[in-house]
Amino acid sequence: MTENLDQIGEREIINRLTKYMPIGQIEDDTAQLNPYGKEILVNTDVLVDGVHFSNETTSPEDVGWKAITTNISDLAASGVDQILGITVGIIAPPSTTWQWVEGVYNGIEKALKSYGGKLIGGDCSRGKEKVLAVSAIGTVGHLRLHRSHALDGDFLIASGPHGLSRLGLALLIQDPVISNVQMTQKLKNKAISAHQRPIPAIDALRALKKCKPKDVPWRAAGTDSSDGLLEAIQNLCNSSNCQAVLDPSNLPREQNWPIGSLWDEWCLNGGEDFELILSIPPIWAKALLQSFPSSRLIGIMQKGPSKVLWTNGEEIQKKYLLEFKHF
Amino acid sequence: MTENLDQIGEREIINRLTKYMPIGQIEDDTAQLNPYGKEILVNTDVLVDGVHFSNETTSPEDVGWKAITTNISDLAASGVDQILGITVGIIAPPSTTWQWVEGVYNGIEKALKSYGGKLIGGDCSRGKEKVLAVSAIGTVGHLRLHRSHALDGDFLIASGPHGLSRLGLALLIQDPVISNVQMTQKLKNKAISAHQRPIPAIDALRALKKCKPKDVPWRAAGTDSSDGLLEAIQNLCNSSNCQAVLDPSNLPREQNWPIGSLWDEWCLNGGEDFELILSIPPIWAKALLQSFPSSRLIGIMQKGPSKVLWTNGEEIQKKYLLEFKHF
Repeated sequence: MTENLDQIGEREIINRLTKYMPIGQIEDDTAQLNPYGKEILVNTDVLVDGVHFSNETTSPEDVGWKAITTNISDLAASGVDQILGITVGIIAPPSTTWQWVEGVYNGIEKALKSYGGKLIGGDCSRGKEKVLAVSAIGTVGHLRLHRSHALDGDFLIASGPHGLSRLGLALLIQDPVISNVQMTQKLKNKAISAHQRPIPAIDALRALKKCKPKDVPWRAAGTDSSDGLLEAIQNLCNSSNCQAVLDPSNLPREQNWPIGSLWDEWCLNGGEDFELILSIPPIWAKALLQSFPSSRLIGIMQKGPSKVLWTNGEEIQKKYLLEFKHF
Repeated sequence: MTENLDQIGEREIINRLTKYMPIGQIEDDTAQLNPYGKEILVNTDVLVDGVHFSNETTSPEDVGWKAITTNISDLAASGVDQILGITVGIIAPPSTTWQWVEGVYNGIEKALKSYGGKLIGGDCSRGKEKVLAVSAIGTVGHLRLHRSHALDGDFLIASGPHGLSRLGLALLIQDPVISNVQMTQKLKNKAISAHQRPIPAIDALRALKKCKPKDVPWRAAGTDSSDGLLEAIQNLCNSSNCQAVLDPSNLPREQNWPIGSLWDEWCLNGGEDFELILSIPPIWAKALLQSFPSSRLIGIMQKGPSKVLWTNGEEIQKKYLLEFKHF
């Protein structure tokens, strides 16, 4: 009982905290409340300087933008209808410039203008390091996405390409691992933008709702890929007690994405992608693929132990990337 | 534009952030949302190690308890009907023991058992110092307390005594300023408990709702005294554009509270009292004083510039206590 948090690890910390949350955010991307018999979604994220952002790679405006959009991404992964309001708790050392704070709030304002919701309150305090704590609240309509709603026979869809944010980080920190790789300027720009100004998959969610064939029920499993594509798929498998099969030739790679194991690894485990990963009936999936151009069919769901396999039956191993360790 | 936060000061920081919040938590103790045409209250607080709690004066359980109850106090100050749910973001250095985290969550659980509401989610991350970010959500009924609802002729009521938490802190850190003061053990115990395990004024709120005379409308001004009694009254005056008059002999002192200027100062500006400060019609006030024993008539509201005066017309000066500076 005298273990330290770094000895326990993030996954076990979250497991142990689950017992305090009878109905919680543990299972899904967001928590749910039912005031007056109506469903509302609630999500809380903390962003810490040096863990979730840094001066090297993100401007103050980027930090504000990311704080809001990563939170909205979680709401989107639960099927949010309307984003109602956001509260922001901000902690900063007394030596922080007002310019930094103003930049953060400008980024927050821009994100809210793009995706709806109002900044309704918060708190501020001094502290040794910069921290943002964001809570977002939204409503849901017909479509309530749960991680546990995948079924045998579903198609697995990614709302967009993966690995871009990881590449953006590598470009920003001038990671030697990519120094000899040829890339188009367009890819570089897109990657840096994905890292600094991620786009939550609100448009994809809207398209998903709009394209549902009439005779198909509102049953769909979903999560976001903020912790990486493979982690997202694994979470759907765990919660739905089924097995995903991915075709390596259909990984959701960006156009002109370089070829090689590093690049597939970033596509699978780069993280911070903020796309929707959906498990839905084939007929609905086909409608989405037609109506939402960046969406990709990446695999299928089948019965079996909750694993993610390649089409050849080999299990896809999750390599735990150190940079996404929160403990 | 290159000023640092400590040069600007907390009040000015909050003023500057107001422009980002059209409708906000700035004016009242909580923010408000209206999903599906129904009112819900939202409140966010951050607690930072060394600013809001410390190993010297608060156990891990105390920290969890305080994180929840200070948040519930804000909801109470807006008239909360039912506390629905709470999210907790926790940040801690990797060297933190699991025992500490478990203690915090045990304190959270105890507080929720006492006052309602479920822990529904949150987030966790490593960081250089311990931080808790708590968001609480609740419903409102007939009574919606606002700081701006005070009127000329109202009675000012405090739901309980003030200064106890400040005395508790002094006892815990063995402040030499009280080393020669005679106090009863009962007072000491009550003070330490007020500091470590503050009680939000949920019972007082319930009594206020229950005792309202039938022909009096549901109009009441309120706030909590988390930043001290004088600050709370000043906030009611500012928001309601009226003037408070306090009788120095009716300060809400605890039984056997020592006599002297330090003690009156702690009663007025000690902070962290978490009582309700109400401005209500005299007939309602009298009903509350009868039905809720710890409540005290502390003064009246009248027309005039928003100041807090003694009965002799002298303005009560707010001494800004350094220990409650958040920047």
